[in-house]
Amino acid sequence: MESNSVSPMPEQNAQAPIAEFDKTPPTPPEDTLPLEDLPPPPTTVTVQEEKEKEAQAEAHRHYEDDNEWSCGSWLEYTLVVVLASILLLGSLGLTLFWVIEYRGGFAWREDPKRQFNLHPVLMVAGFITFSGFSVLLYRICRCCRRIYVKLLHTVFHALAIPCVALGFLAVLDSHNLAQPPIPNFYSLHSWIGLTAMGLFAIQFVVGFFSFLVLLCCEGATAGFRASLVPIHASFGLTTFVLAIAAAVSGLTEKALFTLGSHYQHFNEEGLVINTIGVSLIALAIVVGYILQRDDFRYRAHILIRSGDL
Amino acid sequence: MESNSVSPMPEQNAQAPIAEFDKTPPTPPEDTLPLEDLPPPPTTVTVQEEKEKEAQAEAHRHYEDDNEWSCGSWLEYTLVVVLASILLLGSLGLTLFWVIEYRGGFAWREDPKRQFNLHPVLMVAGFITFSGFSVLLYRICRCCRRIYVKLLHTVFHALAIPCVALGFLAVLDSHNLAQPPIPNFYSLHSWIGLTAMGLFAIQFVVGFFSFLVLLCCEGATAGFRASLVPIHASFGLTTFVLAIAAAVSGLTEKALFTLGSHYQHFNEEGLVINTIGVSLIALAIVVGYILQRDDFRYRAHILIRSGDL
Ligand code: HEM
Ligand code: HEM
Ligand code: HEM
Ligand code: HEM
Repeated sequence: MESNSVSPMPEQNAQAPIAEFDKTPPTPPEDTLPLEDLPPPPTTVTVQEEKEKEAQAEAHRHYEDDNEWSCGSWLEYTLVVVLASILLLGSLGLTLFWVIEYRGGFAWREDPKRQFNLHPVLMVAGFITFSGFSVLLYRICRCCRRIYVKLLHTVFHALAIPCVALGFLAVLDSHNLAQPPIPNFYSLHSWIGLTAMGLFAIQFVVGFFSFLVLLCCEGATAGFRASLVPIHASFGLTTFVLAIAAAVSGLTEKALFTLGSHYQHFNEEGLVINTIGVSLIALAIVVGYILQRDDFRYRAHILIRSGDL
Repeated sequence: MESNSVSPMPEQNAQAPIAEFDKTPPTPPEDTLPLEDLPPPPTTVTVQEEKEKEAQAEAHRHYEDDNEWSCGSWLEYTLVVVLASILLLGSLGLTLFWVIEYRGGFAWREDPKRQFNLHPVLMVAGFITFSGFSVLLYRICRCCRRIYVKLLHTVFHALAIPCVALGFLAVLDSHNLAQPPIPNFYSLHSWIGLTAMGLFAIQFVVGFFSFLVLLCCEGATAGFRASLVPIHASFGLTTFVLAIAAAVSGLTEKALFTLGSHYQHFNEEGLVINTIGVSLIALAIVVGYILQRDDFRYRAHILIRSGDL
């Protein structure tokens, strides 16, 4: 099974199939994840004692669930989620600031140069901010019902679509309406960008049909959906990182196009552009880190402790 | 323990501590990795039968070890390792071809423009080819003794150091010797590049002292070394991906510097540059994929099956 997987990035989602199906655990959770911070199971208890303990755990579950992490875990979780949120909003804010303050703001159709300015802003909004928050949702909404998180994940990605589409149209227009017209798809940036957009479209269509539409016949598709989760998650992270690589090369292009040799002399605008790039790189690292931490995952702590999913 | 980890990328190395220490398994291997393709352990055997099986397994180990993967696993393993090797050598070859065929080859000191040409070649050689093969070694040398793999890993990274240092010197010189001199460290590319070089240096020093020098007092440092492995591996993958992001932005810069508006007209050289960039992006995906596959890991198959480490 493992050997047929085609996911190109770390399968940080080995736990996911369990989280997905509340009633049919494929293996007892204890086999799946060694938990160093729980006491080892007692070796000399009677069956009676065992049952009592379970009943006890059952009774206390609703009060204890959210206290199961250590203080350090909560601190770390809060820190990285806050950091990620700041970077997600901050990179969009910085891009807006750059474009409005230094590039003359926006236009649609009447001025190709200013129409271009919509491209970086909308691409960062769609690919980075919306898409990034959508992925983080699974780690942020730790107490909501799973189906709501899934719907929100879809809504956020759905909101990213018009951003990406308009952002793409903006740069196409700015090339085609320019005098003389500028050719399309010649640059390394545009090749990386097209790949990211293609992956995004595949992810959305496959995700939508597999994880939402197939819910109509829930039981029959459970196994299929479970096996798709790690692949979907790996391709999702790949898409995110590719978008960041595209943005970094796009920023470099734009800096050289518009600043020319001023870029070399630590021009103020150049430093703003570099800062956007650096915050995007930081974002790739922080989001990659959050996604690989299985214990930050939605309900993972409940899942492992209570053992009844 | 998990909660104090600072590794910024997927911890694909949860298995590593076991591989590292042949004599003291922290937990029985069955708890650590659910193996779908092995038959479930028989539930009604006597202790005697169990012992006989173990003795049998012991006797057959040397003949069976390498046959434990399914045919599909071997095929996939061979395919991705061959693909990674082709991309690692291919991107270096393409860079050499580009620089010699289109940029006039190399020089040292007498011509800053041609001295610059050493920069992309040496950076790709050091950061991509040597460093990439060094990381893959842990997956390629599946039958050698662990200490040899470790030494080779160090040697390959040590070979990368002069490449990176000379590559860095080449671009510094080409800036300082130019008339008029070009300022340093103004670009997003150089910021990303410096970060990658800093991480590389930290990785090398920490890796060298922790994994080689500390072997002098083997027992006392085992726990420390084991806990360092996943952090080292995560930072290693981060370094590799950062180097690729640097290379992509560097290629974009160079294309615009030297081709200018020819780049827009699907100039032959421009397509060669884009191809180098695309193969580097592919490399990030393939290497990320190989690293997250725990069963591609050195001796992981022996480790799991024989259960005596
Ligand atoms: C984050 C995701 C991004 C994606 C997926 C993306 C995608 C694309 C695509 C497909 C093109 C080709 C359009 C054409 O040739 O007609 C393009 C062009 C362009 N983009 Fe982006 N872009 C992104 C972000 C950015 C950012 C942040 C900037 C920064 C200013 C930028 C600057 C440019 C420039 C200057 C062009 C025109 C030159 C060229 O074709 O390379 N892009 N982008
Ligand atoms: C358009 C692009 C999309 C991208 C880039 C994307 C990306 C991701 C990523 C990175 C994860 C891993 C999150 C984690 O590990 O916590 C994920 C999980 C998931 N996504 Fe998407 N997604 C997309 C669209 C969709 C759509 C349309 C659906 C439909 C409902 C969907 C359903 C899911 C589900 C069910 C999970 C599994 C959550 C879990 O159990 O961990 N995704 N997605
Ligand atoms: C793979 C790892 C690479 C790293 C770590 C790296 C690092 C650096 C650094 C630190 C600088 C700044 C030197 C200075 O300002 O004096 C620089 C400059 C430069 N690099 Fe790279 N580089 C890499 C690959 C490449 C590649 C593949 C190219 C493609 C041609 C390239 C093109 C350039 C150019 C044109 C400059 C001068 C302009 C500038 O400072 O941005 N680099 N590189
Ligand atoms: C200079 C930069 C270095 C980088 C970028 C780097 C990168 C990596 C990476 C990515 C891995 C994970 C490989 C895997 O998962 O199979 C790894 C593993 C390892 N490296 Fe390094 N490494 C460096 C230097 C060193 C040095 C100098 C040593 C000293 C001996 C060392 C010792 C190890 C060890 C022991 C492992 C663990 C292998 C395992 O059990 O999986 N590394 N390194």
